[in-house]
Amino acid sequence: MAKVSRKPLWHISLLDNATVKKHIYIYSPSGAVRDKAAFKRGVKRLQTLGHEVEVDPDALASHMRFAGDDATRLAAIHRAAASGADVAMISRGGYGLSRILGGIQYKAVAKAIARGTQFVGISDFTAFQQAVLAKTGSITWAGPALCEGFGVGGKPDQVDGHGHGETPQPDEIMEDCFNDLLLGQGEGAGWRQHRDTAANANYHLKGATLWGGNLAMLASLLGTPYFPEIKGGVLFLEDVGEHPYRVERWLTQLLHAGVLARQKAIVFGQFTEFKLNPHDKGFNLSTVQQWLKSQIKAPVLTNLPYGHVATKVLLPVGAHVDLVVEGRDALILWGHEV
Amino acid sequence: MAKVSRKPLWHISLLDNATVKKHIYIYSPSGAVRDKAAFKRGVKRLQTLGHEVEVDPDALASHMRFAGDDATRLAAIHRAAASGADVAMISRGGYGLSRILGGIQYKAVAKAIARGTQFVGISDFTAFQQAVLAKTGSITWAGPALCEGFGVGGKPDQVDGHGHGETPQPDEIMEDCFNDLLLGQGEGAGWRQHRDTAANANYHLKGATLWGGNLAMLASLLGTPYFPEIKGGVLFLEDVGEHPYRVERWLTQLLHAGVLARQKAIVFGQFTEFKLNPHDKGFNLSTVQQWLKSQIKAPVLTNLPYGHVATKVLLPVGAHVDLVVEGRDALILWGHEV
Repeated sequence: MAKVSRKPLWHISLLDNATVKKHIYIYSPSGAVRDKAAFKRGVKRLQTLGHEVEVDPDALASHMRFAGDDATRLAAIHRAAASGADVAMISRGGYGLSRILGGIQYKAVAKAIARGTQFVGISDFTAFQQAVLAKTGSITWAGPALCEGFGVGGKPDQVDGHGHGETPQPDEIMEDCFNDLLLGQGEGAGWRQHRDTAANANYHLKGATLWGGNLAMLASLLGTPYFPEIKGGVLFLEDVGEHPYRVERWLTQLLHAGVLARQKAIVFGQFTEFKLNPHDKGFNLSTVQQWLKSQIKAPVLTNLPYGHVATKVLLPVGAHVDLVVEGRDALILWGHEV
Repeated sequence: MAKVSRKPLWHISLLDNATVKKHIYIYSPSGAVRDKAAFKRGVKRLQTLGHEVEVDPDALASHMRFAGDDATRLAAIHRAAASGADVAMISRGGYGLSRILGGIQYKAVAKAIARGTQFVGISDFTAFQQAVLAKTGSITWAGPALCEGFGVGGKPDQVDGHGHGETPQPDEIMEDCFNDLLLGQGEGAGWRQHRDTAANANYHLKGATLWGGNLAMLASLLGTPYFPEIKGGVLFLEDVGEHPYRVERWLTQLLHAGVLARQKAIVFGQFTEFKLNPHDKGFNLSTVQQWLKSQIKAPVLTNLPYGHVATKVLLPVGAHVDLVVEGRDALILWGHEV
């Protein structure tokens, strides 16, 4: 029986709360891990959940802002691909994949995926995901990084108004979705759109390629061989700390490049931690979305629970999905494909 | 006789200090003018220099962060093109040209340029300049905007250590170069590169197309019809308030798109007002430039006096230039072409 849990959103899963020991490989293809306590907590959390956690020898390497120099990070990616793990998860995002895209052995990554290794990550990892999709058509997962996803906690949370702090835990929805991935039982994700942006429409789009992730990273691939040529896709986007004018400029680039006109739907995830300034005078993420709607025929959805937030779903980048929309409610369904 | 003035740089000009009354059209294609006092000072300064200044009726329009809505700003561009002015100068940069690139009548702009109207601007204006180059091959000028270039001043400058403040004046080099443009007597610009980045090399590149401007804007056109396909060019770049990781990400995009390999030289102008953070640990603009040098065969020059700084030269975007390099000293020469 499909389980549908409503928390602020739904994840759709075949089985209930099953757990099983999996092999998880942790590596660092992007920024250096600075919060080593979060890293340790993340590893411990995955172990507590019953998994075997293998840490790449250079997972904590540091070279300027990077987790090791370019050769080090490339070798880490290739060790992750050769690990035979069930999941290869990045330690964190940051910046660093762009400059090593030309050195990745995409066939080796595709073989690892075919053998059953699921690559999971977020943010800077978007570059890797689109490149893998462009070069091999293989599916990777937009989802947590170790530190921000499983390494939360540490000092007791003092915001509890009752004086007794609680140690923050990894988000329950995120962990449920991650467990679905490990068990191969995830079938989709649903959520409720923002009231002001939801069109009064019901539709069911079938067999569209789901792709996207971090908007800055996606736009940074335009014009390069690492940008997937997806037609009739469902493109999802998120970003953090980026002013809406930058968001609009990147969307404009995707628009002018003809990318948006080729999609069946554009789905906004969470855009967080940006700061408007007095000169914006009403210009904000909402006006950006309205402007986008005036430029394309495809529906523009909002509030997908994905991005630089605790509560997020996992999404198969490159999978064929159905998108079901009933007013504010939306579902992305990938069934048994992945 | 060619005049060569050495201040920190050279501008090469046929005549000496000639002035003549010119018709200058001021319009606002990008961000709303907030500092109206600077705008007025700029207009007055140009008038003091002897010019007829025509202000577009919507030069001070405001719509959210923009200088009027999209239709307003497009109409302003087309009025500037129809003005018959000697120079059409933007009031300021900001953000706003990206979203109206599809509405610009490029043939009308090219006709205006052929009739003798020189379009001058910086920053966001880079999008307009590359689009005009891509669509028509016409030459525009990278140079000052009214407010930041000619509108400086106002309150006396209190940084004079002797206690008697002086009202800041527009930069002398910039005004000399602007005068050269008005008189059609500019022949080139020279400068001294940073000591640590100048290769010990002498060379003379002939007949290369000069193009570029603001790096963020240039990269935001990749993959779109507004990105000029320049082979064997001299690409100059500047930016303001952008962390070196963003600079490197944009350069990586240009690299992976094959753009950099097609150029004869890459010229770094001024990259200003960015802030490194503790996690950079040695990563900075210099390491970005070093990395770039390891990725391409073409020479990478530094310290071109152009960008979001007072002392800057004017540069003809789309013109055929010679680039002469003798150790740290560099010259871009456009002779009588423009």
